[in-house]
Amino acid sequence: MSVLVVGSAALDSIETPFGKADDALGGSAIYFSSSASFFTSVNMVAVVGNDFPLDKIQYLTNRGVDLSGLSIDEGKTFRWGGRYNLDLNDRETLYTHLNVFENFKPVLPEHYKSTPYVFLANIQPQLQLDVLNQMHKPKLVVLDTMNFWIERTLDDLKKTLRYVDILIINDSETRQLSGEYNLFKAARIIQSMGPKTLVLKKGEHGAMLITEDDYFWAPAYPLETLFDPTGAGDTFAGGFLGYLAETDDVSVQNLRKAVIYGSTLASFCVEKFSVQRLIELTKDEIIDRYNQFIRLTKFE
Amino acid sequence: MSVLVVGSAALDSIETPFGKADDALGGSAIYFSSSASFFTSVNMVAVVGNDFPLDKIQYLTNRGVDLSGLSIDEGKTFRWGGRYNLDLNDRETLYTHLNVFENFKPVLPEHYKSTPYVFLANIQPQLQLDVLNQMHKPKLVVLDTMNFWIERTLDDLKKTLRYVDILIINDSETRQLSGEYNLFKAARIIQSMGPKTLVLKKGEHGAMLITEDDYFWAPAYPLETLFDPTGAGDTFAGGFLGYLAETDDVSVQNLRKAVIYGSTLASFCVEKFSVQRLIELTKDEIIDRYNQFIRLTKFE
Repeated sequence: MSVLVVGSAALDSIETPFGKADDALGGSAIYFSSSASFFTSVNMVAVVGNDFPLDKIQYLTNRGVDLSGLSIDEGKTFRWGGRYNLDLNDRETLYTHLNVFENFKPVLPEHYKSTPYVFLANIQPQLQLDVLNQMHKPKLVVLDTMNFWIERTLDDLKKTLRYVDILIINDSETRQLSGEYNLFKAARIIQSMGPKTLVLKKGEHGAMLITEDDYFWAPAYPLETLFDPTGAGDTFAGGFLGYLAETDDVSVQNLRKAVIYGSTLASFCVEKFSVQRLIELTKDEIIDRYNQFIRLTKFE
Repeated sequence: MSVLVVGSAALDSIETPFGKADDALGGSAIYFSSSASFFTSVNMVAVVGNDFPLDKIQYLTNRGVDLSGLSIDEGKTFRWGGRYNLDLNDRETLYTHLNVFENFKPVLPEHYKSTPYVFLANIQPQLQLDVLNQMHKPKLVVLDTMNFWIERTLDDLKKTLRYVDILIINDSETRQLSGEYNLFKAARIIQSMGPKTLVLKKGEHGAMLITEDDYFWAPAYPLETLFDPTGAGDTFAGGFLGYLAETDDVSVQNLRKAVIYGSTLASFCVEKFSVQRLIELTKDEIIDRYNQFIRLTKFE
């Protein structure tokens, strides 16, 4: 089965303690597609300006990503500049130039509308809902959001959440959205808003899958060198949903495997700047690391 | 096989958002013994004042804890007062009255000296070394320490670490002791100081076992109500080392199981004030929760 992603395409300038990159490929739709395309075909919806180096995403087309939903608008591409501190856990946004992304109104090509698996990356909740309204009964809707939308457009977000099956969210957003500190109680509150399944991203501490009657705890891969954490969350989502779509199986047991595929892809993403590592990556490397995850948690 | 523990016995006064307890049983040796005694016989070395309510630790004797190394000195028992904030992750020390603990000089009864498994709880590193010097070639030495000793008695700590097999330590102490932010690089540095195995305690994020060529990642048990986190670390150590001593098997595979037993015991500890939950606990409950840990991480 194929996956639809709606999100951003950007040119990122990133400084980390290990180096810097200028105008490197970025944005949630790009990271997600780079990752999900290892598993299945992807329909991408995003917008870039007419300064965007389309040749640099040729690799996506080669991997079965349909770019007919990528709108090329008059103007400049969304640009983000950020700097990470020494521990790579905190980052400072140096600038955010929305450019053509400011007026992003996702319009789905006709042949996208029946895509069974949908990822609504972190954009304005109203736009996420607009996308769902264009679709013909998707099988599974996964949504990502952030503190910015929880603070400013909570009502819209809650409206959208009603139509969401799986919410991907981090610790602090979980607490903020629910108003509850204990993550497991918080999860119950959020489940009552719509999404019956939560994937809690905890960065270097791994991820948790919380369904209505089950918990699953996934480790983070132990990396001695972490180079650039940008895009790890969307890469996780790509591995997670890409695997679910490929297998077309949304059982709790398969969701667990999908979380590990997400974690596997994210662990590669952070090894180099931008999407570089995802471009070089092979399916064999993915399978090998997935197997290392088995070893990482096995005790019986 | 039996276990020796050297540590503190205290009377704790604790405030949490859920209530308070005055002069409740506390101290590393008490928590450790309450936990390890589910698995094997324990030889305890600690000191209390003549105000200590010995009847309250009768349950330890009933469980096979040898208290002949518990010195009852003229004066008052070590008292600690602490207050936890709402999220229970931060605590404030209200007072620390060392009392008789200030002049604690652990002296091992003759029949303790051949105990094969040793836990040196968080006390002055020089005292930890004094204990080892009184022993006849223990099979396995496990040590706990804290930022206080890393800051003030680093040379002594490094001297003691040479004789340690397994160091139990948290994230920030790992970074502080090694001078390295990345935990996996930090572990390599600490391994070169002596202990070839590290157990990294990460609180609500679980624990990691780091040996020379292996990583193991253990989850924390998902608790919707966490009541009092005091003593969780020593309770973890008790379950961990108690299980190792009971099975007398220090293979990497068995160390993994031991980490899960440690996590299991710690998850019970925090459900009530002080050692209350550990007093009521049954072996069946331990086995049942251990099995839930299997379910928590299984994906293949």
